[in-house]
Amino acid sequence: MTGPDRIAVVGTGLIGTSIAMAALRAGDTVRGFDSNVSILEVATSRAGFESVGSLGECAEGADIVFVCTPIATIARVVTEVLEAEPAAVVTDVGSVKSQVVREVEGALPEAAASRFVGGHPMGGSERSGPETASGALVDGIVWVLAPGTGVEAAAVDRVEAWVAKVGAQPVRMEPARHDRLVAMVSHLPQVASTALMGMAASEEAGEPEILLLAAGGFRDLTRLAASNPALWSDILLSNREALAQAIDLYSKRLTALRDLVLQGRGEEVETAFDEAKRSRLQMAAKPQVKSGVAVLQVLVPDRPGVLAELTATLGAHGVNIEDLQIVHSPEGGRGTVHVTVAVDAADDASRALERRSFEPTRLA
Amino acid sequence: MTGPDRIAVVGTGLIGTSIAMAALRAGDTVRGFDSNVSILEVATSRAGFESVGSLGECAEGADIVFVCTPIATIARVVTEVLEAEPAAVVTDVGSVKSQVVREVEGALPEAAASRFVGGHPMGGSERSGPETASGALVDGIVWVLAPGTGVEAAAVDRVEAWVAKVGAQPVRMEPARHDRLVAMVSHLPQVASTALMGMAASEEAGEPEILLLAAGGFRDLTRLAASNPALWSDILLSNREALAQAIDLYSKRLTALRDLVLQGRGEEVETAFDEAKRSRLQMAAKPQVKSGVAVLQVLVPDRPGVLAELTATLGAHGVNIEDLQIVHSPEGGRGTVHVTVAVDAADDASRALERRSFEPTRLA
Repeated sequence: MTGPDRIAVVGTGLIGTSIAMAALRAGDTVRGFDSNVSILEVATSRAGFESVGSLGECAEGADIVFVCTPIATIARVVTEVLEAEPAAVVTDVGSVKSQVVREVEGALPEAAASRFVGGHPMGGSERSGPETASGALVDGIVWVLAPGTGVEAAAVDRVEAWVAKVGAQPVRMEPARHDRLVAMVSHLPQVASTALMGMAASEEAGEPEILLLAAGGFRDLTRLAASNPALWSDILLSNREALAQAIDLYSKRLTALRDLVLQGRGEEVETAFDEAKRSRLQMAAKPQVKSGVAVLQVLVPDRPGVLAELTATLGAHGVNIEDLQIVHSPEGGRGTVHVTVAVDAADDASRALERRSFEPTRLA
Repeated sequence: MTGPDRIAVVGTGLIGTSIAMAALRAGDTVRGFDSNVSILEVATSRAGFESVGSLGECAEGADIVFVCTPIATIARVVTEVLEAEPAAVVTDVGSVKSQVVREVEGALPEAAASRFVGGHPMGGSERSGPETASGALVDGIVWVLAPGTGVEAAAVDRVEAWVAKVGAQPVRMEPARHDRLVAMVSHLPQVASTALMGMAASEEAGEPEILLLAAGGFRDLTRLAASNPALWSDILLSNREALAQAIDLYSKRLTALRDLVLQGRGEEVETAFDEAKRSRLQMAAKPQVKSGVAVLQVLVPDRPGVLAELTATLGAHGVNIEDLQIVHSPEGGRGTVHVTVAVDAADDASRALERRSFEPTRLA
């Protein structure tokens, strides 16, 4: 523990303000700046940090500066901060790391660039704006630190210690590796979802009944398609090579399955599905539920209050709901609810539901 | 209304037994048969229909025979039933229609085949087995009727009247059109989900940290990958041409997005995302919510009872929850809940939640 840090936050949207609040909660002093005065005002009144009128004033004397601006501006702002305050460690919160690390290294002498530790808090909220910020946003999240090769060990240690201090989980990773992995598990799903929704929508023009036939699975796969287009366009373009590779890998898998189906090779299709099923069930809803999870399926009538009854029954028995999904028939009338709970809690949960006349079936 | 029908069910798994229960509920008489004696016993004790020892005995004197056997056996069983009982209308519940219609037409004289009305109740439950059957399974669902071209109008009318009588929504469609549409909105999502999970799992061998970086979107897209491999392999293979075409269309869309990203054409990427977003938001969670839906985002601590509090608050205000999704940070500690409600109920729901110190943000 290093004791209180002097924290500066440049860019006081949702993430920046949440970081400020987490820092204040941990006893740090915090200064904040945003080029948009009205956003800065909302952020200050939400978080209670010291609001200042310029980037230079914000960074002056700070131990760690968090650059929380939109992805397209990060490299430029980081560079300015590194030049403005020669003692501070600087980090950012962008979703893609190679490009910003490369740009900062290219813009500055080695000594200055060696104080920049690329970061990515995986806090995945779709909200935006400081009015919904919360220090709780960082609780328990994975926070990737992805410094370039020339970065001082002490700078990385400093950011890492701070991340752990506020309750998040630091994970070190090379920038290129980070980008390759998020391309696969974050950026590709976004593209896959958008492509599926776009395809169904374009078919719908001639086939208005198509969505009548779309059940819960289609809705699951297209939920991400409702994300912020401008934000995602920026993220995807800044990770273009890794994303293109991920899409290529994905297309290859799709084509391989297509060929197996077309050739009637049922056993091989079944094997592919079986492997994916096992992986999916092993992937705990949340990694900290070490004992694994169980999924209970419950048929419920579609009326106000029924979910409350179900969740209250579990809450009253101390069962934490790890995940809950409503699987509707496309036309409603009733729904099936999938409730994910820790494996150790599954029997308790089933018995509690049965006593209240729900009929849980354990799926996994 | 035709009054009580004499119903026969061949294959008394989940769907067959649920159909029997829906028929009994509507005042019909029901006979059931399954070649698996123990499944037939469970079904009889669950549903209370008359259990018989052979297919011929089951079909004898029936007005409508429902063939509810696994997809690979449907055409053969339908053919046997049409031959055994020359007065009955016969229908099935398979997920794919062209192949079975073609096979029945090929196996029988025109007069016999003209009494077969291909059907597909879109009841999408992942359960199986008669022990969880319920007449409620058919309430309000879309039930596609897809007869071949030579089928008697009276036969189609008869099945249609029955479907409406038990509370489902009949939708007539040519077999090929049905298969093309379900390929896109049901079978392709299954393949897309399995391919994504398979890809991440195979990467995980060398990159155990990959799933640490997977957030809610990845979980949404891979949930379907946990479905029954043998069942899906049969379904996909029986719709192979339409599915291959859907995969090809999908791959083209993915490749087009890939190229836009790689070429840095941000505005076009944004437009594609924007169109998909609008389509996704227009796609009501359930078509019968005619006024459309609103999505509220609520940040909640991750502890037993909190979902109960949230859902009870809405239930107490008469707000029906159309959909609810928990979006975790990958490491837990807190979650974001997306609650979908009818648009007219959104303001009430927000105010009710705010009074209980939840902080809902309206996403759409």
